[in-house]
Amino acid sequence: MRVGILTAGGDCPGLNAVIRAAARRLMSEGHEPVGLLRGYRGLAEPELRMELDDRAVSGILHLGGTIVSTSSFDPFMEPQGVERVLAAQQSHPLDAIIGIGGEHTQWITARLHEQLGLPVVGVPKTIDNDVVGTDYTFGFDTAVQVATDAIDRLHTTAQSHDRVMIVEVMGRNSGWIALYSGIAGGADGILVPEIDTTVEELVATIERRHNKGKNFSIIVVAEGAKLAFEGQEAEQILASEETDEYGYVRLGGIGAILGQELEKRTGFETRITVLGHVQRGGTPTATDRVLATRYGIKAADMVMAGEFGRMAALVDNKITSIPLTDVDGVKPIDFEILEEAKVFFG
Amino acid sequence: MRVGILTAGGDCPGLNAVIRAAARRLMSEGHEPVGLLRGYRGLAEPELRMELDDRAVSGILHLGGTIVSTSSFDPFMEPQGVERVLAAQQSHPLDAIIGIGGEHTQWITARLHEQLGLPVVGVPKTIDNDVVGTDYTFGFDTAVQVATDAIDRLHTTAQSHDRVMIVEVMGRNSGWIALYSGIAGGADGILVPEIDTTVEELVATIERRHNKGKNFSIIVVAEGAKLAFEGQEAEQILASEETDEYGYVRLGGIGAILGQELEKRTGFETRITVLGHVQRGGTPTATDRVLATRYGIKAADMVMAGEFGRMAALVDNKITSIPLTDVDGVKPIDFEILEEAKVFFG
Amino acid sequence: MRVGILTAGGDCPGLNAVIRAAARRLMSEGHEPVGLLRGYRGLAEPELRMELDDRAVSGILHLGGTIVSTSSFDPFMEPQGVERVLAAQQSHPLDAIIGIGGEHTQWITARLHEQLGLPVVGVPKTIDNDVVGTDYTFGFDTAVQVATDAIDRLHTTAQSHDRVMIVEVMGRNSGWIALYSGIAGGADGILVPEIDTTVEELVATIERRHNKGKNFSIIVVAEGAKLAFEGQEAEQILASEETDEYGYVRLGGIGAILGQELEKRTGFETRITVLGHVQRGGTPTATDRVLATRYGIKAADMVMAGEFGRMAALVDNKITSIPLTDVDGVKPIDFEILEEAKVFFG
Amino acid sequence: MRVGILTAGGDCPGLNAVIRAAARRLMSEGHEPVGLLRGYRGLAEPELRMELDDRAVSGILHLGGTIVSTSSFDPFMEPQGVERVLAAQQSHPLDAIIGIGGEHTQWITARLHEQLGLPVVGVPKTIDNDVVGTDYTFGFDTAVQVATDAIDRLHTTAQSHDRVMIVEVMGRNSGWIALYSGIAGGADGILVPEIDTTVEELVATIERRHNKGKNFSIIVVAEGAKLAFEGQEAEQILASEETDEYGYVRLGGIGAILGQELEKRTGFETRITVLGHVQRGGTPTATDRVLATRYGIKAADMVMAGEFGRMAALVDNKITSIPLTDVDGVKPIDFEILEEAKVFFG
Repeated sequence: MRVGILTAGGDCPGLNAVIRAAARRLMSEGHEPVGLLRGYRGLAEPELRMELDDRAVSGILHLGGTIVSTSSFDPFMEPQGVERVLAAQQSHPLDAIIGIGGEHTQWITARLHEQLGLPVVGVPKTIDNDVVGTDYTFGFDTAVQVATDAIDRLHTTAQSHDRVMIVEVMGRNSGWIALYSGIAGGADGILVPEIDTTVEELVATIERRHNKGKNFSIIVVAEGAKLAFEGQEAEQILASEETDEYGYVRLGGIGAILGQELEKRTGFETRITVLGHVQRGGTPTATDRVLATRYGIKAADMVMAGEFGRMAALVDNKITSIPLTDVDGVKPIDFEILEEAKVFFG
Repeated sequence: MRVGILTAGGDCPGLNAVIRAAARRLMSEGHEPVGLLRGYRGLAEPELRMELDDRAVSGILHLGGTIVSTSSFDPFMEPQGVERVLAAQQSHPLDAIIGIGGEHTQWITARLHEQLGLPVVGVPKTIDNDVVGTDYTFGFDTAVQVATDAIDRLHTTAQSHDRVMIVEVMGRNSGWIALYSGIAGGADGILVPEIDTTVEELVATIERRHNKGKNFSIIVVAEGAKLAFEGQEAEQILASEETDEYGYVRLGGIGAILGQELEKRTGFETRITVLGHVQRGGTPTATDRVLATRYGIKAADMVMAGEFGRMAALVDNKITSIPLTDVDGVKPIDFEILEEAKVFFG
Repeated sequence: MRVGILTAGGDCPGLNAVIRAAARRLMSEGHEPVGLLRGYRGLAEPELRMELDDRAVSGILHLGGTIVSTSSFDPFMEPQGVERVLAAQQSHPLDAIIGIGGEHTQWITARLHEQLGLPVVGVPKTIDNDVVGTDYTFGFDTAVQVATDAIDRLHTTAQSHDRVMIVEVMGRNSGWIALYSGIAGGADGILVPEIDTTVEELVATIERRHNKGKNFSIIVVAEGAKLAFEGQEAEQILASEETDEYGYVRLGGIGAILGQELEKRTGFETRITVLGHVQRGGTPTATDRVLATRYGIKAADMVMAGEFGRMAALVDNKITSIPLTDVDGVKPIDFEILEEAKVFFG
Repeated sequence: MRVGILTAGGDCPGLNAVIRAAARRLMSEGHEPVGLLRGYRGLAEPELRMELDDRAVSGILHLGGTIVSTSSFDPFMEPQGVERVLAAQQSHPLDAIIGIGGEHTQWITARLHEQLGLPVVGVPKTIDNDVVGTDYTFGFDTAVQVATDAIDRLHTTAQSHDRVMIVEVMGRNSGWIALYSGIAGGADGILVPEIDTTVEELVATIERRHNKGKNFSIIVVAEGAKLAFEGQEAEQILASEETDEYGYVRLGGIGAILGQELEKRTGFETRITVLGHVQRGGTPTATDRVLATRYGIKAADMVMAGEFGRMAALVDNKITSIPLTDVDGVKPIDFEILEEAKVFFG
């Protein structure tokens, strides 16, 4: 079998570990893995392919990024996209395709299977840990560790200067990174997209702490968190930002607004750190390498068993697979863990 | 309620995170946590106790070690041990006791509950991840990360010099650390206590690699791994070591013997690294801090619910509890994962 | 002798290492170190003092922050500041004072010596490495390492997505951190306050790289760097920012403006990371701990030798001292090193 | 000009940074760098060479190891070594050679220049920092950081268990790594090859600490340190080891002997960690990358200026060059720094 392997969507620590594991497993049974470059573009354009032999996948386990590169190419959106995919399958047929990507990628993968009948399997990928149907995705542990290291460093500087420190972490639709790094970093407040937090609650937390003699606070906020105000909604304030002519919406997001409001209301000096893309690059943690490796082997095994139309998944601590059609929407945080975290607020 | 919290047995990253979480949760409901110093010795000797107020448990989340210190004191083995525990309960009564420790500690905790009727709950602790009844223990992730970082560093030096590198990691009775760090570090062989590996197999692996042009190999070996020889057992060779007058059994363990044998049989230069206690000290990873925090909150909740005689556990990705009497023996590695790792050997 | 030790100005990794070393050295000769809390406020207010005995300075070598806390209190600016300092010296006399701080702190220290005749010695401190008269300050190495780790992580994500990544690092008056982390991180452009760089130069660099097939670029920019435009100055653009009602000047600094301009002119997707306070907190590197320790011992030795009115310094790789009055202005970067870095631009 | 670049001797973090910088600098002036593989073997065997074009030296700045591989091939020791070098120069002439290596490599480089008249320049390399004529060598900072990280981790475990921890670090002929990591890690004793330390002194230190209530100690020992006994020399004890049939001399070195003796004499539990090759592999620190880059650029500049027979050096914080013939013997530690460290012993 000739098996295409591709990575689509954003960068994520562990992509190379999946590619290596899938390729090595396939080679061990005599199959031929081939890298499809730039995500699904490599499925549509046969010249965008590379051999994934033993040499190509050596020494890449610990590297960030992806050796087959990535893109957000969507054959169902591109002009002639589906036609080009089918033509490429005619001229340069693949016996199976492993699509590594996030929610949107899995949606493409599902349609390729259902509508075009292509022999595909999916591997979930996102630092945000919000893919439905799998307990953890690789890349998440690394992102949490990077954010936690940053919070550790901010702690000493917050303490020395009686400051409120706001750390904006990734998480547009879900607050997994904020929740885990907030607990691991000992945050005094955690804002996630799943739940509205009012400025008044945060102000109360900070004041409770100061009354106890703790003159600094750390607030971790997911980039997609909503800030509510008693009696009004954050959207109004956020909306006014969108007109900014210098593109500061990108940086001047929820963290900046929150900082502004807290400083105004508590009188404490406030500093904002936006971690940004450092959370999604670089060497994966050991945990992510193990998980990514296991997903890669599973995907190869699924290909060899003909289990198409399914995605590798971690369920109750076991590697298994689920139908691609079940991968729908965004997996919210575990609210029980957020309740536990509240023990430490204020 | 006045609740004693103790840590017993070896050092483990995350102990302070458990203490902090349990203490904060208890205080949030108006209870009074107290630290029992030097493990179960603090239960027998009331003068070995410290207040665990808000101040005492502040700023310790990320610290290695344990603020209440530890020991291997066993009241059932010490002269008058049981009598002193009961006398201390009379003079300085505790309404509940949280015992954080490994398999042997949980065995003591179980007997304190069953034989003496003490109101105890257990929290599993070991970097080795071999406590029965729980999927993961805190400290394990940190130990695996430390070992993986070391293997990453050894890789470049192995490659530059055409060497066989042997890394001896902790794991007297189980090979969890070797298995995970071996996969994460891209090892070419992993030796665990659960399964005998013959020298001949390893020699074959190394030679296979060299035939493919890969002139270096990394072998990860758990300290408790057994080395077999075709036709004879390792025990004979290990036995001869015990007479060594300079105490080299400690260092001259399985890694050294393996290195000696491989160098002799393959002709390749071999170097041995014994990671030792760096695996059990220092700052816990983010993952271990989250897990330890969750165990601490669960233990406090168990105390408040009167669920005595049970141990906090992680089962199928959920925090729950199991009877202390079920915590018996050693949890072996997941053999499925070891099978997966073999894809990368040679 | 009773010797006051204080830290003033911003947080800096290594402060505790200086305090510990000075205190231990003084105690080894029978003297009595005392911590002055909140910078020079502790000199004016005798109730803001703590004993620095053996126990107080144990276990702090590797901790970020400062156990004696810090502030920007300036006795020459505060109402009755000088009077309160002199009164405190009457009521609670100190035989010597060690002032650890940056340029402004050293200026205060110099005046305390010259104008009030106080027996003071200085220790240079700044992550920016821009104190005149000393080759390196502690904290700088840590800041450079933190920035370099971030750039390493951004590299893989830049590569996977064909992006221009801008990293804004600290350095209001000098570009040392940008220069060193830029070289260590393999930057394709480095902007420092000492030299104006035009947008046109950077655009040319990025285009040169793309013509060579390198589809990503990393630009490191000091927060105080000036961005010039052919025919006009950056100030105009920066000025318009100051009216922003949400305080975005803090975040929407040079990095954001640069990103905006580069994206507009090159058409490449641009992402901005503002590292902020993570650069000044947390555990110091080994190098910073050694340097800080050496400064602390030197300061104690200066006190014991009666060398007042001077600052410990590292000159030509030797620990020595210079007159406080020589510590004037800002030490610019080594322009030779910037020339060397240009070999790698484009 | 066609310029050969080679790395000889042991692995060292920063080698690739030197290669990249020298190659990029040479290319920027239109010259042609070529990699000589396996150290000086590549000078004798023209088939062991690789092009060092822009692509070859991209993305290697942060990688440990060396892309041109290394060996201890010595043309003056190999049969026909000199003849083969001269023949290769005839058939595949190089206009200059950059030899990156330690003391022995520089000795070869000097002879190639003096005896054979080859146009060579040297770059000092050793994690041990003991090359004469240069203040610091790249790789040293990384080795010190790795050792310090390990000591940090051992601290918590030492504290929790009332133990003496012995850390054996690299340094066969000089104690630089032991000295710097000992200070940075807060060691209570540092043993270096340059000075004999008696067991009795160490025992006194440990007992002094315990009398002060500090129930643990950390001793850092260079692998080449000599252990003296009042009235006798260590050599006798070491000598008896050499007969060990299992090769334990490698592991059962000074650390193990010291541990044995201290445990016997103090009664405290002692644990030994031998860091080994983790100190010489892996990603270089930011400081080492900057230093290595500067050496690489200097070497290229020396080639282009025709300054042959010299070695790049860091003297008084400036990059310069010295005659290869001055590079003789081993640079001992700075004894002043060792004196400073003694403030912290006991």
